[in-house]
Amino acid sequence: MITYLEKMKTNSIFYPILSKINNPKDLRSLSEKKLSKLCLEIRRFLLHSVSKSSGHLASGLGVIELTVALHYVYNTPFDHLIWDTGHQSYPHKILTGRRDKMHTIRKKDGLHPFPWREESEYDILSVGHSSTSISVGLGLSIAAKKEGKNRKTICVIGDGAMTSGIAFEAINHVGFIKEDLLIILNDNKMSISNNTGALHETLLGETKYYQSKKFNQVLEKEEKFVSNSLKRRSRNFFRSLGLNYFGPIEGNDVYHLIRTIEYLKKRRGPKLLHIITKKGNGYLPAEKDPILWHCVPQFNLKNANKSIKRNKKKMFSDLFGKWLCREASTDPKLIAITPAMKEGSGMKNFCKFYPNQFFDVAISEQHAVTFAAGLAIGGYHPIVSIYSTFLQRAYDQIIHDVAIQNLPILFAVDRSGIVGEDGPTHQGSFDLTYLRCIPKIVIMSPSNEEELINMLHTGFHYRKGPVVVRYPKCYQKKFLKIQSFSKMKIGEAVIKRSGKKIAILNFGTLIEEAKIVSNRLDATLVDMRFVKPLDEKMILKLIQNHQVLITLEENSTFGGAGSGVNECVLKNKIFMPILNIGFPDNFIKQGNRREIYEEIGLNSKGIENTIQNYCNKII
Amino acid sequence: MITYLEKMKTNSIFYPILSKINNPKDLRSLSEKKLSKLCLEIRRFLLHSVSKSSGHLASGLGVIELTVALHYVYNTPFDHLIWDTGHQSYPHKILTGRRDKMHTIRKKDGLHPFPWREESEYDILSVGHSSTSISVGLGLSIAAKKEGKNRKTICVIGDGAMTSGIAFEAINHVGFIKEDLLIILNDNKMSISNNTGALHETLLGETKYYQSKKFNQVLEKEEKFVSNSLKRRSRNFFRSLGLNYFGPIEGNDVYHLIRTIEYLKKRRGPKLLHIITKKGNGYLPAEKDPILWHCVPQFNLKNANKSIKRNKKKMFSDLFGKWLCREASTDPKLIAITPAMKEGSGMKNFCKFYPNQFFDVAISEQHAVTFAAGLAIGGYHPIVSIYSTFLQRAYDQIIHDVAIQNLPILFAVDRSGIVGEDGPTHQGSFDLTYLRCIPKIVIMSPSNEEELINMLHTGFHYRKGPVVVRYPKCYQKKFLKIQSFSKMKIGEAVIKRSGKKIAILNFGTLIEEAKIVSNRLDATLVDMRFVKPLDEKMILKLIQNHQVLITLEENSTFGGAGSGVNECVLKNKIFMPILNIGFPDNFIKQGNRREIYEEIGLNSKGIENTIQNYCNKII
Repeated sequence: MITYLEKMKTNSIFYPILSKINNPKDLRSLSEKKLSKLCLEIRRFLLHSVSKSSGHLASGLGVIELTVALHYVYNTPFDHLIWDTGHQSYPHKILTGRRDKMHTIRKKDGLHPFPWREESEYDILSVGHSSTSISVGLGLSIAAKKEGKNRKTICVIGDGAMTSGIAFEAINHVGFIKEDLLIILNDNKMSISNNTGALHETLLGETKYYQSKKFNQVLEKEEKFVSNSLKRRSRNFFRSLGLNYFGPIEGNDVYHLIRTIEYLKKRRGPKLLHIITKKGNGYLPAEKDPILWHCVPQFNLKNANKSIKRNKKKMFSDLFGKWLCREASTDPKLIAITPAMKEGSGMKNFCKFYPNQFFDVAISEQHAVTFAAGLAIGGYHPIVSIYSTFLQRAYDQIIHDVAIQNLPILFAVDRSGIVGEDGPTHQGSFDLTYLRCIPKIVIMSPSNEEELINMLHTGFHYRKGPVVVRYPKCYQKKFLKIQSFSKMKIGEAVIKRSGKKIAILNFGTLIEEAKIVSNRLDATLVDMRFVKPLDEKMILKLIQNHQVLITLEENSTFGGAGSGVNECVLKNKIFMPILNIGFPDNFIKQGNRREIYEEIGLNSKGIENTIQNYCNKII
Repeated sequence: MITYLEKMKTNSIFYPILSKINNPKDLRSLSEKKLSKLCLEIRRFLLHSVSKSSGHLASGLGVIELTVALHYVYNTPFDHLIWDTGHQSYPHKILTGRRDKMHTIRKKDGLHPFPWREESEYDILSVGHSSTSISVGLGLSIAAKKEGKNRKTICVIGDGAMTSGIAFEAINHVGFIKEDLLIILNDNKMSISNNTGALHETLLGETKYYQSKKFNQVLEKEEKFVSNSLKRRSRNFFRSLGLNYFGPIEGNDVYHLIRTIEYLKKRRGPKLLHIITKKGNGYLPAEKDPILWHCVPQFNLKNANKSIKRNKKKMFSDLFGKWLCREASTDPKLIAITPAMKEGSGMKNFCKFYPNQFFDVAISEQHAVTFAAGLAIGGYHPIVSIYSTFLQRAYDQIIHDVAIQNLPILFAVDRSGIVGEDGPTHQGSFDLTYLRCIPKIVIMSPSNEEELINMLHTGFHYRKGPVVVRYPKCYQKKFLKIQSFSKMKIGEAVIKRSGKKIAILNFGTLIEEAKIVSNRLDATLVDMRFVKPLDEKMILKLIQNHQVLITLEENSTFGGAGSGVNECVLKNKIFMPILNIGFPDNFIKQGNRREIYEEIGLNSKGIENTIQNYCNKII
């Protein structure tokens, strides 16, 4: 039996048009009539491809027509096309020479999950986090003007991404200096979750206006249509910021898009085209549940929903969600905040059962943190649930609005450590470093499910200042029924195994690997639990009857938890071997977590080797 | 001769009304008629006070009427009044029980430069960085609703602060969930510099409309005025985001403000009142040059401008500006970017002579960095000039949009280390830690004026990836004529003095103190220059003929440059005493730089003591 990919390569019957397109030049040589058929082929190919590879599906399905239209109208890669965030870039990859590698996406050594500069000259910006496209686009449009070759710049940004502060900062600049730039606002009413916020509502208003005019009825009279639908109306959000706002128009009609974009290409200045697309368009299960189908594991096309749901293992995030519900049941002052990651953070049930104690603030990490500060000042008990890399967006807010004020806020920092398939932009490699230097903060790193909930409980009731509990994208190994919590003593480590010569100071879930290693080497194993404050007593005790300390963490060794142990030991005038094991000083590529841990030497074998190399000639 | 303060205390002739106001309750017991006189007294008092103490002047002068009106109408501190950024809070401090301590502001153990929670129950939020008030206000207004005591929340934010992403994120949330909150947009057309950006222009549009209506003519008919001036017009920026927008109204008329605010107090929901004030109002020199008078040293009231200008010593920032002009003279692709800190960063001349190579992006640190990424991708040579603590706002952008893409961008990170009078929010204590863990980045720390320009030059021409040159708020000791630059070898340290037993590894301008110490202790002194990559060869060489390494830096010792030395030494299996000297693990209060360095043990005496304590019984 031949696979769909072999079919693709060997047989042009399944994809008569797509199989001949190796780059956008080929696309541009097609007659316009063939484009809707091409879109169908891309849709079919994308579905088959992601069903085998896993990955981001619904966003891509929504922008197939847009992708075809943009590469058709513009002279890419000479003209600069920037995809914001990158969830929606699969059709772009298919059309820009990477069709036959789509099955490798998100896999080790395969195609990158998002647009990636090193991968293709068609990928202008490497992305992963949202809302950066307009800033980069403005920089490029200024460069293009200075260059004087009439090079065009186009940014495609979703309505979800538009809520983040940096997008606003960029628009404030774009609307002021009036460079030649086309921003396409891809409005599908979604971030990963349903979109929320005032801007979302104002866009809905625009859409209502548009629908009331029944533009579809005039679709045939294209010229007239373009001039009608693009006609200026009263001021709106974007016009008030100096942009020429056009639309909204139907975004899943390729001809309609081409007419409109061709028209806009001729106009100078900063333009925003508001298009309405359907996330998951053309695939019913994804249209019906675009949240579930945002990013999917491998699935069976014939029995789609079931095959996806069956696949869902429970994660640490789910445990966080369970704990949250349990804690809220006894504390009406508990308030949980997410910046648009309700599902990923495991808060689906919580927001259903405790809607008055739940806030999705949209993609707004800075606001999420400072909003929590306001609630804490007002006497409430806020919990900010946030991914490690997204917390980078709120670094100043944690320092200023939380730590300096010493406010009791619990940060549940998910996706700390290797996340796997999403690659370099999403690996939580730095949080221990960038948080550890902040005065007054307590940082915990659970080594298992039970510790996770006890730490959340301990942190939530600490109330003397900010607390971080950081945990990885990790499947639960055992089913944990949350019945009672035990409070931990702040800064207290526990010995898990007593051994000789070598003491492994473990921070986090690598403890499973560390157990194997400590058994093999007859080493002492300590579950440090607290990155800040460190259990100095424990460290000084270990020093007395061990020759080497090994620190182990899921974070960069530069300034991480291990670095804290170094500082502590040296400060106490002890001069002994300490080996810091953690992430290397480079950006770690995609792959599954097991593969990556093997590659960077953080499975038991790798850890043992590293320790033995270090201890060679020392003990 | 008695001073103005003694006059204040002993004699009510100079301040007959103000001298009797010890808190807002006293203010609220005054008859309305007396308020304009009170404003005059506050203005006079503020001028006298700041002329003796130094500090932020022009912003305060602009909001005297607003401050009086807010405390008059609202029941502070029960009602929550939040001042954004805090430059404008001096009149607030004067009216809330701190009048007699105003001469101590920004001084060691004196009043805090900004609103500060620990200082007064009237200070709801401790601030320093801009644009956080709306997020906090929203949190407080939700808490107030749940409390059910009709407690009100008011945020005062400048038009400059409104450009920052977090303010937009907050408004997006406010306009959506419709809590009861009054935002007062204090539009004085300034950040510290002149304000810029599309939002600024749209506000100018509102103001023009307002001026054309000549509202002043109807000032007497107050009721009519209120209903007229507050009447809804067509949609604008704020209305499109779901806020009830009112104004603009004259913001330096206390009666007018009271009428309006009383009216708004009765209305529920999210409201924004746009008021027009004059920065520096009532003091001609400050009205004429509000940039110069934003924050001033001590001055002579009778010969104001001269006494300020004479006081101005040259700083490292000025040297950066000089270098910038010089480098731009040979490179038309050089582009310098500031997020609204043109003057503070020393770029006044540069923007005059190279206007086409200069961008002030307004208070938008995130955009500043990612905009630079776009320019670099487009083949230009961007330089982002930014303060250490403001860079915290763009942490994710440095990691994602610069380092992951490995783009050649130079970051001139000013105000790294102790800044002095501005206090905890502005001390550049963390940048070495939060930057050092980022892969691919080069970090330099000059020890003197010459190194600063050579590092800037080296970093600018490096072109293999991002470079940070971080330097403190430091006066130039010698006049440096920039004639030629020498390129430095990346990662190369230099020995400044050869000594015995002890080697001091110095990162930055504390080298002057280190010189004294090394002479006294006959220690080796090395100017490390590079925090990343470290000069490992040098470190290994030093190890061979020294018994103790001392690292010295102007940064937290948690994960800082010294921590890098620990990591390097231990990795090389050397087990010897290393002492990390730097900032302690707490937020460092205000004072002048000399005082603070003395207090935290970073003058030569303190450093010597710390070293000797550590070396006791070791060597």
